[in-house]
Amino acid sequence: MDNEVMGLYEAIDRRRDVRAEFTGAPIDATTLERVLEAAHAAPSVGLSQPWDFVVIEDLAVRRAFHEHVGTERKVFAAELSPPLSDRFADIKIEGILESTLSVVVTYDPSRGAPSVLGRHAIADAGLYSVCLAIENLWLAATAEGMGVGWVSFYREEFVFDLVGLPPGVRPVAWLCLGPVTHFEAVPDLERHGWRNRLPLASVLHRDHW
Amino acid sequence: MDNEVMGLYEAIDRRRDVRAEFTGAPIDATTLERVLEAAHAAPSVGLSQPWDFVVIEDLAVRRAFHEHVGTERKVFAAELSPPLSDRFADIKIEGILESTLSVVVTYDPSRGAPSVLGRHAIADAGLYSVCLAIENLWLAATAEGMGVGWVSFYREEFVFDLVGLPPGVRPVAWLCLGPVTHFEAVPDLERHGWRNRLPLASVLHRDHW
Repeated sequence: MDNEVMGLYEAIDRRRDVRAEFTGAPIDATTLERVLEAAHAAPSVGLSQPWDFVVIEDLAVRRAFHEHVGTERKVFAAELSPPLSDRFADIKIEGILESTLSVVVTYDPSRGAPSVLGRHAIADAGLYSVCLAIENLWLAATAEGMGVGWVSFYREEFVFDLVGLPPGVRPVAWLCLGPVTHFEAVPDLERHGWRNRLPLASVLHRDHW
Repeated sequence: MDNEVMGLYEAIDRRRDVRAEFTGAPIDATTLERVLEAAHAAPSVGLSQPWDFVVIEDLAVRRAFHEHVGTERKVFAAELSPPLSDRFADIKIEGILESTLSVVVTYDPSRGAPSVLGRHAIADAGLYSVCLAIENLWLAATAEGMGVGWVSFYREEFVFDLVGLPPGVRPVAWLCLGPVTHFEAVPDLERHGWRNRLPLASVLHRDHW
């Protein structure tokens, strides 16, 4: 197996959704640019590249988001009964303040509109493109020895206002980014008994479902 | 830069949305499994892994889809005026029959439900996870020297019926997959004057939009 193949599989295998392992160490500008260029090189419907990246170092903004996530954590916790509620109590869901910075990734449906090639029949195709960019960012960060943690305990309106998004632009992800002490070998949720990974065979079908 | 980093960036850089370059050569089972395992190793909200993969070799199924895509191509073409309509006439939008096989990737919102950790506030978070898996698949295929072409000229109901999806499961992508003669250096849509790639700087913001 050559370098390209090996390097990619290593990044895919090592990648984790990081919460507790951020060191807060600085990210040099060149590395951050490589990671963002990787995201920006993702495929997109009709070559619309409908994403934007808001790199947030400002602690005041991250603190406000952190507080909001704390509230949403309680909303979710209130829906749970034992044993899930006990397991959830042990699970760290974000590293907003410990990580070096945050990257908010957004979707702008007006990019390339009205004639976005490949989107006339599937309105969500543009949203899908944004996620492809997020995965590129995630893998590039991992290969560079940095962790990414996707935080999704938030209301879109809150992030919309906090980051000052223009009308029509939708927040898709709040990503915590930065150097880490190490990558865990097993996903946090599996280590905490929340849920186990499925074998590939259980989600694979041939010719027909 | 070490192998992991280099290999990943090479895959990201070489990756194209392939239509015309498929050879139709067979894919050995081990390679296909590596590519699908890469997809299945993607991050997912609440470790829900809400994706399924339907690997379609059956030519009858692919022909039926091919015909449907032809109809949807006409729907989109009818919305265009010159010069876009002329440009679109030259653009090949799929390689369904020329590629070795198709992979339909779906989203099952019931996987891990009702308490999907991280999805209570953002209903689309599960759909996002499926797209992360698709990008892993795409990059793994590229590193293995295979092309992927995401075809999105279709109605979801059509694919739902054609592939026999269970109620509630949603098709997210129809991917054409297989060995290629080569990867184009520039995306098809840019080569055909449909749209040019944006510089990263135009989609990058600091601390606030």
